[in-house]
Amino acid sequence: MSDDEAAAGADDFETVVERVLERVEPDADERETFEAVATELLRRAEDAATERCPDADVVLVGSTARETWISGDRDVDVFVRFPPDIDRDTLERYGLAVGHETLPDGREEYAEHPYVTGELDGFDVDVVPCYRLADATDIRSAVDRTPFHDDYLQARLDAELAREVRLTKAFMKGIGVYGSNLRTRGFSGYLTELLVCEYGGFRELCAAAADWRPPVELDPEAHGDADHQFDDPLVVIDPTDPGRNVAAVCDATNVARLQHYARDLLAEPRLDLFEAEDPAPLDEAALRDHLDRRRTTPVAVRFDAPDLVEDQLYPQLEKSRAGIADALVRRGFDVLRTDAYADETGVVLAELAVAERPAVERHEGPPVHVRAHAEDFFDAYADDPDVYGPFIDGDRYVVEREREFETARGFLESDALLEVALGAHVESALADGYEVLVGDEVAALGPEFGVELAAYFEPVP
Amino acid sequence: MSDDEAAAGADDFETVVERVLERVEPDADERETFEAVATELLRRAEDAATERCPDADVVLVGSTARETWISGDRDVDVFVRFPPDIDRDTLERYGLAVGHETLPDGREEYAEHPYVTGELDGFDVDVVPCYRLADATDIRSAVDRTPFHDDYLQARLDAELAREVRLTKAFMKGIGVYGSNLRTRGFSGYLTELLVCEYGGFRELCAAAADWRPPVELDPEAHGDADHQFDDPLVVIDPTDPGRNVAAVCDATNVARLQHYARDLLAEPRLDLFEAEDPAPLDEAALRDHLDRRRTTPVAVRFDAPDLVEDQLYPQLEKSRAGIADALVRRGFDVLRTDAYADETGVVLAELAVAERPAVERHEGPPVHVRAHAEDFFDAYADDPDVYGPFIDGDRYVVEREREFETARGFLESDALLEVALGAHVESALADGYEVLVGDEVAALGPEFGVELAAYFEPVP
Repeated sequence: MSDDEAAAGADDFETVVERVLERVEPDADERETFEAVATELLRRAEDAATERCPDADVVLVGSTARETWISGDRDVDVFVRFPPDIDRDTLERYGLAVGHETLPDGREEYAEHPYVTGELDGFDVDVVPCYRLADATDIRSAVDRTPFHDDYLQARLDAELAREVRLTKAFMKGIGVYGSNLRTRGFSGYLTELLVCEYGGFRELCAAAADWRPPVELDPEAHGDADHQFDDPLVVIDPTDPGRNVAAVCDATNVARLQHYARDLLAEPRLDLFEAEDPAPLDEAALRDHLDRRRTTPVAVRFDAPDLVEDQLYPQLEKSRAGIADALVRRGFDVLRTDAYADETGVVLAELAVAERPAVERHEGPPVHVRAHAEDFFDAYADDPDVYGPFIDGDRYVVEREREFETARGFLESDALLEVALGAHVESALADGYEVLVGDEVAALGPEFGVELAAYFEPVP
Repeated sequence: MSDDEAAAGADDFETVVERVLERVEPDADERETFEAVATELLRRAEDAATERCPDADVVLVGSTARETWISGDRDVDVFVRFPPDIDRDTLERYGLAVGHETLPDGREEYAEHPYVTGELDGFDVDVVPCYRLADATDIRSAVDRTPFHDDYLQARLDAELAREVRLTKAFMKGIGVYGSNLRTRGFSGYLTELLVCEYGGFRELCAAAADWRPPVELDPEAHGDADHQFDDPLVVIDPTDPGRNVAAVCDATNVARLQHYARDLLAEPRLDLFEAEDPAPLDEAALRDHLDRRRTTPVAVRFDAPDLVEDQLYPQLEKSRAGIADALVRRGFDVLRTDAYADETGVVLAELAVAERPAVERHEGPPVHVRAHAEDFFDAYADDPDVYGPFIDGDRYVVEREREFETARGFLESDALLEVALGAHVESALADGYEVLVGDEVAALGPEFGVELAAYFEPVP
């Protein structure tokens, strides 16, 4: 923003922030509803837990517990803590039983260990069993750590900082970097709250992020040590565990994106940066226009999406995307950009700069002076009517032989696709059958993935 | 050759060699004619030289002098040696005067220094002035060395070895590796004779070459030293100068080719390996057949050949070939194979695996965290309607912008071609105008370069 614009009365930072807060602060009604739900959940869970194990207790964790949730959030996490002397099997059995008693319509899910998820009065509730331990470094599974995180933040977040956390979350959601699931690979709630504590506020975090030079390392408790080194663009040593980077899942793109939009917000404060909006789905005419203008050849492999939770599906999809892209490049089909989507179907999309190769390819033999190998190579091809050569180039025999796949479609439709490094369930899905779309045919993805195609062909930071 | 074939009476090595010798040994008539010409040349040159410098003398050098010429060779080199106390200008002046008196119809040529070339009774004669020195390591220019080479070989080549040299030369000519000019980059006469001396005969040389493991180093006088290291596939330390590799010009392809055909000859001795024959020129129909089968896109840049001697022209042509190939590859036009020809016109030919690219190309900006550069990059493209992006990929801004050249033809026809690393005279020739041929259009090269195209599209070792 230029000085003129500022003088002309463009929104200033505080004005924008006030308006955002009006939207994201839960109002009295919302709080009241939440309190009622939380009380009921804790009561049910505690009854069920102590009935089985008198020494168990129950805690609310997460942003709802810490008053850092933003209006409209509906996630409530109830942790049921058991003493460490009960064995794992018993803990799991008790945990599920408590879950089902707390959420009569709930269903079981499996992360590191099983838990029950369900609904109560419009809130999405997880009832998760864990061990109650003396120190976070003794944890037996990741969920055991959560209550420690909660304690740490509870002790530091006053009402003022909670407000800053809400702003920060709204901003991170607005610019698409919020969430540590393996689809987003962005900033978790815990990480966000730690960053706000560390820098002392939302604006301070923005100012700092705008000048970050990754790798950025923060160590709130100053207890990181040389035994634990992290190769991540953002490192925030867990205050409850010096061996853990809270930002391990946050990828370079999301770190850079936060930097970009932090600068943007500081230079030109405005509401729309706090409002995530999906682009309008790309329609077929717009897709054709892009392809005409770009003169690339998009290819897509489409299959029935494996029935997996997102945190299992997306890493497999990503592995498959990378494997297919690499295989295309190795076969000479130059890739401009790739993407992968999943809903009912899974899709790996590759936009090719080169979709056809000649019928022949160069095949280098051994150096002529490696006599035995060289003679074998020469003899193998000397009378082959399907190759050009052997001829000598530098010190080697060379032939030009038939290329296996002249088109990207030919490769993708062949069994060779299944030899690519794919996610295990994606590989099974492909083995059951898949569809290859080339060029304009990718318009068939529009009804299911129009929004994703819009994001692809009309990219923003 | 299998044992059965041998038993069935295929030609044996000695039978083949005898037949080759019948062809390559000059007969009595040819020798007599040569003697007469040589005597006349020496008389004329000596008269002209001593008239100007009483201390000058005249020698025949090269294969004719050493009796290692093969029937049909017509090259005679007359060296006029002046004492080292006359200055260079005088030497050149005297040398040209002696040349013109010896060859009244001769013309001047310029290698390292000027000499006269012409004809006498059907022989091609060079009259070359040089210094007469005590030691080859004192030479002032390359030609001063020649008489030392001559002395060295004269002392070692008896009639038996001279016969072996003739055979070797016939073989090297037959397989296309004879000649140290910068077009062929093969084996010089001097190198060939040294190799025969070193191994003791033609068959022995073949047996040794068949098992060479380059870099091969030979040092007939065992006077090579650590101060002179050579990075060539074949190193033969000059017996008259430890600082010189006689085989410096011989490239890896010709070394490998000699190895290949030496094995072939030993396994299956036959006359045709001693008989160089150009392939039949490729006609237009055959060219189209090859292109249909290969599905490549040949492109050719054709220009008026610069008026240079071959040893100046071919290095320039080679530099231009490499420069154009590299520029094509850098712009995404993948090259399968290239070649270059010269006659009346000069041609750089590149056979492309990819002749078209999309309209857009990826252009990576700075990492987002390099704030000043990153902001400049973003601002430069943020409102540019002709680019896609900027978006963020990993830690960087990226845009997809219009590619400069979508087709290889577009690039080759543009001024950008003149910015490629080219030979100086080729660059001037292109600046005066050139023609670009694409695909079937390269058939237009047939009338001038049909033989070269046949060698290209029907390659042999």
